[in-house]
Amino acid sequence: MTHRIILDCDTGIDDTLALLYLFGSDDVELLGVVGTFGNVTEEQATRNNRVLLDAAGLARVSAYRGVPVPSFWTAEQGLDYEVDEGCERFHGKNGWGGAELELPESVNRGEILPDGVEFEAQMVREYGTDVTVIATGPLTNIDALLTRYPELASKLKLVIMGGALTQPGNCYNLISETNMVNDPEAANRVFHSGADVTVVGIDVTHRTLMTRAHVESLKEEGTAGCFLAQALSYYVNANEQADSIFLKGSPLHDPLAVGAALDPSLIQCFPINLMVDLTGPQRGRTVGDPALLNEPAEHVRMALTVDAPRFVSEWEKRVHAGCRRINAILEK
Amino acid sequence: MTHRIILDCDTGIDDTLALLYLFGSDDVELLGVVGTFGNVTEEQATRNNRVLLDAAGLARVSAYRGVPVPSFWTAEQGLDYEVDEGCERFHGKNGWGGAELELPESVNRGEILPDGVEFEAQMVREYGTDVTVIATGPLTNIDALLTRYPELASKLKLVIMGGALTQPGNCYNLISETNMVNDPEAANRVFHSGADVTVVGIDVTHRTLMTRAHVESLKEEGTAGCFLAQALSYYVNANEQADSIFLKGSPLHDPLAVGAALDPSLIQCFPINLMVDLTGPQRGRTVGDPALLNEPAEHVRMALTVDAPRFVSEWEKRVHAGCRRINAILEK
Repeated sequence: MTHRIILDCDTGIDDTLALLYLFGSDDVELLGVVGTFGNVTEEQATRNNRVLLDAAGLARVSAYRGVPVPSFWTAEQGLDYEVDEGCERFHGKNGWGGAELELPESVNRGEILPDGVEFEAQMVREYGTDVTVIATGPLTNIDALLTRYPELASKLKLVIMGGALTQPGNCYNLISETNMVNDPEAANRVFHSGADVTVVGIDVTHRTLMTRAHVESLKEEGTAGCFLAQALSYYVNANEQADSIFLKGSPLHDPLAVGAALDPSLIQCFPINLMVDLTGPQRGRTVGDPALLNEPAEHVRMALTVDAPRFVSEWEKRVHAGCRRINAILEK
Repeated sequence: MTHRIILDCDTGIDDTLALLYLFGSDDVELLGVVGTFGNVTEEQATRNNRVLLDAAGLARVSAYRGVPVPSFWTAEQGLDYEVDEGCERFHGKNGWGGAELELPESVNRGEILPDGVEFEAQMVREYGTDVTVIATGPLTNIDALLTRYPELASKLKLVIMGGALTQPGNCYNLISETNMVNDPEAANRVFHSGADVTVVGIDVTHRTLMTRAHVESLKEEGTAGCFLAQALSYYVNANEQADSIFLKGSPLHDPLAVGAALDPSLIQCFPINLMVDLTGPQRGRTVGDPALLNEPAEHVRMALTVDAPRFVSEWEKRVHAGCRRINAILEK
């Protein structure tokens, strides 16, 4: 079975791993990649997406511009998003911890197109649940899509990386998760929209760890592997400095969302009517909506456990394959 | 099969329902009831326990004094616990919303004995996991037991009402649950002790609701039913005033812990290495311990779902039977 996929991401080091996971999977038809802000600016994310798609020989797949600022920003705040210091510490200014992937002149270049939200809407309208949208950043684009076309909620199949339910968060308050904090209102509307949402949060991503040995082994994969290993070293250093729980390995946040989208049997989910706290010191917390506790939880499933050994092994295999795919293009 | 039970409670209106659930179950051998502070003072809880045991014809079962103040209190704070205003709003000063259960002279009176912690230790030493300790208040007594006799942790089978994992809490910060806030350090030590703990928290107790019709129907059960209905009306009023989610019914917190102890098939649990936040604005929050996320969760199970219709029906049946048992003694 071929999986039709749209990736909506704030690329970002682990978003890059998510893309590589897709590049290394032979059962994927990637329809397009839409940028969002978060780990980096939306503009930077889109530029990174274009470079990665071209490197993988996917010039025919368009990179789309997304919404550049959170849904709760006022007109006065403008469109000039400033990346959170914490995000920059994990991803660097360019989203790759300063590493660069240079494309030779000979490599075909694809397009950067405007209005990724409209693109997503068109694909969902055309394919319904035969396309999976994977969102690994804030849900600002998805929220814009559902606000513009509320009737598409019932056709939207979404897998997101975000949230924390049974584990502390990774933000300032130790309650909320970064993607949720970056646009709590958008996420809260998406969870209440009726769209089919699988939530891959810290509960499971902190169980799937990339070790320094994994990073080392990528250096054997030529130009692509060395680029990736350099970016990943930055990410591993940041994780180790942030929290002693990451001395054993760094979380594979975004690739796990891709893994779960391609093979849902990797995770076990808890059906829950999820909400996002919008006010107070717990702003950005994902938690069950008490007003809907006694209603059937039909639309949102929160991943609580994961077959970590199987996923990490799949990830390693596919990311190596993704690197080889890039090398084949770069060395052509 | 007969269940050997010790109830450790801060009686309290829903603790009273927990006792009535036990009185109305014919497969229970109640070894003793230990008081703790929380909904009322420990002294008041113990006094209430004695009255209820005597009323049910259980003069032979002792009521034990527990630890009167939280484990984190300093010597300077003394032993004079002051009940939290929020607790008093739900349970009244006497734990029964002002209702009183008068015992005729003819009713046999049992004993109030000191050192319920030692009693619990003796029973766990003697029966091991053939006795279940059900704790429906703060875990101060249980923590004292395990601090005094750490070797008993591996023999202790505990079912508690407390905590909130996938739902907001019911305390000031909307994150923490009352029993946890009343002694976070004690609960945290118990969760890390290696004891076998089933946690019945807000995640499930807010799904099992007592309606005004339930309260009304108890008035048909003579003296005991009228006493209970008066107390429960106070509790229902307090819940309705506290939160609109309780307009459909008031949570059966403590009786659900008893129900789950007698019939674990009523709940479905998530194995988790649980901790309690001790500092910051989320003090008292129950959440997975990130340092143990990738260790097997062998000892603590958090209830996430419940067969609410079956439990509420069992509760109604047993509480009515409990009332009839009391009436038989009062009218002898």
